[in-house]
Amino acid sequence: MPMQTDLNHRTSASVPTPSLGAYYQRIRSLSERIAAPLSAEDCSVQSMPDASPTKWHLAHTTWFFETFLLKQRSGYEAFDQRYESLFNSYYNSVGHAFPRDRRGQISRPSLDEVWMYRRHVDRLVLDWLEANELTEYQREVLVLGLNHEQQHQELMFTDIKHVLFSNPDLPAYQSSSDAADTAEATPMQWRTERETITDIGHDASRTAFAYDNEGPRHRELIHRHQIGSRCVTNGEYLEFIRDGGYQNPMLWLSLGWDAVNRNGWQAPLYWLSLEDRYDQFTLAGRIPLRLDDPVCHVSYFEADAFARWSGKRLPTEFEWEFAARDASPGNALADRLLASNHVIHPYQQAISDWLGNVWEWTSSQYQAYPGYAPAAGALGEYNGKFMCNQFVLRGGSCATSSDHIRVTYRNFFPPETRWQFSGIRLADH
Amino acid sequence: MPMQTDLNHRTSASVPTPSLGAYYQRIRSLSERIAAPLSAEDCSVQSMPDASPTKWHLAHTTWFFETFLLKQRSGYEAFDQRYESLFNSYYNSVGHAFPRDRRGQISRPSLDEVWMYRRHVDRLVLDWLEANELTEYQREVLVLGLNHEQQHQELMFTDIKHVLFSNPDLPAYQSSSDAADTAEATPMQWRTERETITDIGHDASRTAFAYDNEGPRHRELIHRHQIGSRCVTNGEYLEFIRDGGYQNPMLWLSLGWDAVNRNGWQAPLYWLSLEDRYDQFTLAGRIPLRLDDPVCHVSYFEADAFARWSGKRLPTEFEWEFAARDASPGNALADRLLASNHVIHPYQQAISDWLGNVWEWTSSQYQAYPGYAPAAGALGEYNGKFMCNQFVLRGGSCATSSDHIRVTYRNFFPPETRWQFSGIRLADH
Amino acid sequence: MPMQTDLNHRTSASVPTPSLGAYYQRIRSLSERIAAPLSAEDCSVQSMPDASPTKWHLAHTTWFFETFLLKQRSGYEAFDQRYESLFNSYYNSVGHAFPRDRRGQISRPSLDEVWMYRRHVDRLVLDWLEANELTEYQREVLVLGLNHEQQHQELMFTDIKHVLFSNPDLPAYQSSSDAADTAEATPMQWRTERETITDIGHDASRTAFAYDNEGPRHRELIHRHQIGSRCVTNGEYLEFIRDGGYQNPMLWLSLGWDAVNRNGWQAPLYWLSLEDRYDQFTLAGRIPLRLDDPVCHVSYFEADAFARWSGKRLPTEFEWEFAARDASPGNALADRLLASNHVIHPYQQAISDWLGNVWEWTSSQYQAYPGYAPAAGALGEYNGKFMCNQFVLRGGSCATSSDHIRVTYRNFFPPETRWQFSGIRLADH
Amino acid sequence: MPMQTDLNHRTSASVPTPSLGAYYQRIRSLSERIAAPLSAEDCSVQSMPDASPTKWHLAHTTWFFETFLLKQRSGYEAFDQRYESLFNSYYNSVGHAFPRDRRGQISRPSLDEVWMYRRHVDRLVLDWLEANELTEYQREVLVLGLNHEQQHQELMFTDIKHVLFSNPDLPAYQSSSDAADTAEATPMQWRTERETITDIGHDASRTAFAYDNEGPRHRELIHRHQIGSRCVTNGEYLEFIRDGGYQNPMLWLSLGWDAVNRNGWQAPLYWLSLEDRYDQFTLAGRIPLRLDDPVCHVSYFEADAFARWSGKRLPTEFEWEFAARDASPGNALADRLLASNHVIHPYQQAISDWLGNVWEWTSSQYQAYPGYAPAAGALGEYNGKFMCNQFVLRGGSCATSSDHIRVTYRNFFPPETRWQFSGIRLADH
Repeated sequence: MPMQTDLNHRTSASVPTPSLGAYYQRIRSLSERIAAPLSAEDCSVQSMPDASPTKWHLAHTTWFFETFLLKQRSGYEAFDQRYESLFNSYYNSVGHAFPRDRRGQISRPSLDEVWMYRRHVDRLVLDWLEANELTEYQREVLVLGLNHEQQHQELMFTDIKHVLFSNPDLPAYQSSSDAADTAEATPMQWRTERETITDIGHDASRTAFAYDNEGPRHRELIHRHQIGSRCVTNGEYLEFIRDGGYQNPMLWLSLGWDAVNRNGWQAPLYWLSLEDRYDQFTLAGRIPLRLDDPVCHVSYFEADAFARWSGKRLPTEFEWEFAARDASPGNALADRLLASNHVIHPYQQAISDWLGNVWEWTSSQYQAYPGYAPAAGALGEYNGKFMCNQFVLRGGSCATSSDHIRVTYRNFFPPETRWQFSGIRLADH
Repeated sequence: MPMQTDLNHRTSASVPTPSLGAYYQRIRSLSERIAAPLSAEDCSVQSMPDASPTKWHLAHTTWFFETFLLKQRSGYEAFDQRYESLFNSYYNSVGHAFPRDRRGQISRPSLDEVWMYRRHVDRLVLDWLEANELTEYQREVLVLGLNHEQQHQELMFTDIKHVLFSNPDLPAYQSSSDAADTAEATPMQWRTERETITDIGHDASRTAFAYDNEGPRHRELIHRHQIGSRCVTNGEYLEFIRDGGYQNPMLWLSLGWDAVNRNGWQAPLYWLSLEDRYDQFTLAGRIPLRLDDPVCHVSYFEADAFARWSGKRLPTEFEWEFAARDASPGNALADRLLASNHVIHPYQQAISDWLGNVWEWTSSQYQAYPGYAPAAGALGEYNGKFMCNQFVLRGGSCATSSDHIRVTYRNFFPPETRWQFSGIRLADH
Repeated sequence: MPMQTDLNHRTSASVPTPSLGAYYQRIRSLSERIAAPLSAEDCSVQSMPDASPTKWHLAHTTWFFETFLLKQRSGYEAFDQRYESLFNSYYNSVGHAFPRDRRGQISRPSLDEVWMYRRHVDRLVLDWLEANELTEYQREVLVLGLNHEQQHQELMFTDIKHVLFSNPDLPAYQSSSDAADTAEATPMQWRTERETITDIGHDASRTAFAYDNEGPRHRELIHRHQIGSRCVTNGEYLEFIRDGGYQNPMLWLSLGWDAVNRNGWQAPLYWLSLEDRYDQFTLAGRIPLRLDDPVCHVSYFEADAFARWSGKRLPTEFEWEFAARDASPGNALADRLLASNHVIHPYQQAISDWLGNVWEWTSSQYQAYPGYAPAAGALGEYNGKFMCNQFVLRGGSCATSSDHIRVTYRNFFPPETRWQFSGIRLADH
Repeated sequence: MPMQTDLNHRTSASVPTPSLGAYYQRIRSLSERIAAPLSAEDCSVQSMPDASPTKWHLAHTTWFFETFLLKQRSGYEAFDQRYESLFNSYYNSVGHAFPRDRRGQISRPSLDEVWMYRRHVDRLVLDWLEANELTEYQREVLVLGLNHEQQHQELMFTDIKHVLFSNPDLPAYQSSSDAADTAEATPMQWRTERETITDIGHDASRTAFAYDNEGPRHRELIHRHQIGSRCVTNGEYLEFIRDGGYQNPMLWLSLGWDAVNRNGWQAPLYWLSLEDRYDQFTLAGRIPLRLDDPVCHVSYFEADAFARWSGKRLPTEFEWEFAARDASPGNALADRLLASNHVIHPYQQAISDWLGNVWEWTSSQYQAYPGYAPAAGALGEYNGKFMCNQFVLRGGSCATSSDHIRVTYRNFFPPETRWQFSGIRLADH
């Protein structure tokens, strides 16, 4: 999932038609609920170049529908000509994009104007849907736009967390600090797999949505290996820290050791070191570190170093997909957590944690599947342009929506990334 | 005036006592009027490290009164403990200051909370004043705090201008685009002065307020020279541009030529190049360049290069002070322009433009006067710590308040600075 | 082959014993022949952080034998204690290494002293070999050291080329500018391969030397694909340039487009643009661009963009190894070119160009083979520590020695690298 | 004296004529003696961007005579066309200069070729002198070129010291480690001066050579002050260090405190911290710190902080010149030290240390004297272009030649500079 890079997708199959309007309204309203607890000031801060202000996310997801649907209709007049550049993320074929690292310097349009922009676009889209005049292609673009918005919803959570953390008083986004059904961590178990050839990737004959980088479905040879039954916990990671993991260059990739020293890393992002213990910053504010929860907000470098320290390694994305092939998402995904007023936070799950807890770093660098071909035009622009110096993450996180998660989903980030809900699963030969 | 560096001052004499409360209210309320046209989002943006968000200015000026007056009283409890670091600019002796370049990442406290902070402090200060219990020293600190706030009021104008300019649609701060009494530029005349010895600096026997860097008053030998009767106009500067001024290294200081190339300077800040002419961005939005107005928003490097191109030089700060010794501020200073709903902008003045139009770069690097000694304690902290690699500007600008301007006032900025209302006066041997 | 990072290896099998002394002398003397045409000044320049001075290469390869062989014997006294840090490349377990980017600031020891250092170590190693007292492990280390020196011999060529190019008058390293048997480029042909499972990597049961990253030999599934019969030529690459390849963002990876703009790339490294044609800088000085020669000194980004422009892609390293499985090195490798006084330069080969012409960028990011485990101790230190953000190159170049080249060899460099003899082979689905 | 920036001068008066040839030979041969102890490798290293390789100094000083004298004669053919750019320092009017920070990457021409270049130019200049055909202007240029070479001779010493210090084994340039007549430091005495008007700068009616920035001679008002009888010693500076001087932000200019932290300064350059004492690196290698010698290799920031810690200040350049008006250089200047085989190093002088020991930082930022006008043409190019963000140093150092030192001489460097022989004299109100 190209969250960080906004969009990387194409529908590979037909899309649900009957209640497209209801679907549209459900997804769009979630963005509004995510922004609801925030002030206009919260929504305009950009706390680092990789993150974007909430206001920008709200506008950019709307810009998508305006640009790729409404503007394709003859006679449509732009809501505001200046938004074309301002809320373009990186589509060169749609014109020049406003510099990414200056998104926090935009005080105009105001958050109120962005709300009006959303209303305007929503009304036109819904009217059009009601008139039942969309072509099949336009329906696909609409579904794509909603999946695109779901990606940005996850980014809203991670970016808001980072913004709030930048405030010296560490304010909370959510009032409740109760976790959902936290379980005790069970002992790690190792599932052994023989060498096998398996199908990998999205099956285009199925009607469900998938991004184009999930296909074509193809055969992969998986070597004999073992894979862990659950993700690594905070408690296990703490042992790595206490064993001097951050001080021992032999455990790190060369670039990772550079990153440790350049950034002064001593623990995962959002861990707060006290005299004899750690707190962690969550969307519900500061709480004591819960040892049984999966470790989160680690970079690829930290995941890799932890694995080396453990005498293990990270799984490949194919080993991961093979192991998770029958998994189903837990009950603790972003939209459900929000609905039940629980904290958006990974917790130790009672049964399976393959989907929807933390994004799991794999050892696979992000590359095209055999036979992959980018789509034509702006929507397909750059589908492969990020396939360099990024690692694949799998599984979705607690910040992902329940219908935006699946076994074939490929998220990817540079190895130094920490502000996503990223964790660790181990494998072995 | 150490605007950029917040504070550099000490009262040198007794202060007006009778209506200190009225004085306090007048100055404090101007800050509120300056912020009034802005949204909370406008007030939280930091468009470059040198500038600060309006919200920060509103809070920092209040922090000054809380820290140096209210907290000195036994029993006072801080409005919010976290503000001590957050709204400290650079006073090491008052504790650790929040990093300057991250002021735009603070969404909490909100602008509303900062308004409450101002109300709280204002009420306590005014009650105390009413009780007439302040010592002479406390009165001096109060006056100092009000002068400090006036400095920040000027910075609010320059920082807001920069923030609005960072928005792609170049919104206006003020609705009116009418200039105050703009005149035609008169022909430049040259006043010749013989070598003389004169007194320079603030006379401590006078009761008026001055910063400590304006004294001690002392004797300086001024050499024979000529000085221009008015500031350089946009029209004159345009000739320099059209003559290839920005392309000719022989006209520039070595560091200036580096700055031209590194920043891609082709014209003063806020000039917008069109096919055959220039517009300029003002606090009232975009308008055509007015050729008779004084050129503004130039760096020292540009002022120096223009002077060299003209076969002239910049005056020393002593030549300037000697020439301006009898000048009085015009009618077009910030508080008055605001009151009369005119644009805060330098304009060609009918008679004298020595005070209150543009800050005039002098050739004098910022240094201590003979016998200068910094004050003791936090208030005197660092009075001289900026005396390195900065140039003195004289005269005050259209963004200065009418009672915050005087002939001995020394403003200073690094030579690359352009976002202040800074212009050019010429001198010659 | 971890050239850039000096060492990444372990012998995987027994080594030739009988004439180890002759073998040692042959490899060591080649280094001396490579340096022979250079002055002491040429040998001490570091023209960029990635490259090292020739003097440093001569000393570091000697340090290897001293550190990992001679110093392991009791009673050995270091030739010079200071060399331990000075000529350590990055072995943390051997102590602190001198900063890589400051290698050009070392004027002492002089080149003469480094020659004495080589004599000293050579004499002791050869005496020891003659006494026939080495253990099997020590023999393995010796062979490893010689392979290590061969890697550095290739780096000497590439680094010298870069040093000479940094001189404004572009001096030649070799006097002759005659190419070896240059052929005309034949039309590109496409070999089609069906899906197959094949063995990849070095066969440990064979006695020949290989680095540990070439194993373990294991099975890989190769998908149906086509692969080009020869490398891309200068003439073909010129079409890409003339078609605006360097100006079209749609052809580039996102990081590649950044690199193009940051570095101002308009052509491969060492191409010199004239009004209507190109020259190229070679080790024999400046010559007209030969259109039939394989394009060389391109980054991964350029290789990838060229492939996209061609409607093709780069091969994976497995596709490459499968295609090249029966290839044998041509006659034009570094040691032979040098012996016959030909220019070290890639040229169009009459028959097969799989081995020993240009390093061919593959689409495979550098990763461990299944079951790979780094060796213990300093020699095995960090075998995998560079497996991040690097791409695999295959085939060896004209700067590789004839007995240092093989089908399983894995070279790797970051995608921005251009100063190696790196070229392009195309593949397709 | 614009050492760092190569040249900033113009003869202000007639020059010695009779033995111009002997004068030429004496100065030119000193450069050769300075380089004599160095290898070609030593001579080609550039250890930091501010310093230049010795080879470059040898060539650039020769380029000066070729460019400004020989090339002005019709029929002269350049020794090597490529030298024009390569050995140009910064004269824009003579064409494009080779990038300053890449001077260490030039291995061709070799040192031997540079020696030939010197021979060639020397022969032609001396022949011409013998023929007695130079115009008065050409004689002036010649004298200027010799003064220019003397500046570079001082830079050779400071740059060589820095190069040798960059080698891990800290090799010596001179064999002897005996100091010249080192004395014990006498107690500091304070000379009190009343307010006075005095003449400052070079008297153009005198025939001796001076740079144009030393004039015009003009009147300055000097305020009442005190000035120290000798420079600050290592022992006195050590007290500042032991009192926590480098840890106390209140003692430093704001930019100075930044420099301390960015560079990790804990002591002057070339001080080597041992457990309970300091060594210092000298041109004769490493020796124990001599407490009675003047402190040296401090930046302006350190000089200023030391003065503040002492409750004093630095003198202005006018106070300095007034105090030193009758001083004469000691016996320990570069040419004499070299002749008597003594170490080029500042030492405690028995009588007067105003001239020729350490360059003394003044509080004066480098600016033009009243009435200063740069000369026309290339020789006068940029006479004032460095008058920004630099501080004036006075007095000459142990690395200055005996006939290149005088009371009116103005050296200047940015405040962070430490590799010159720069020290501290105190003043007070």
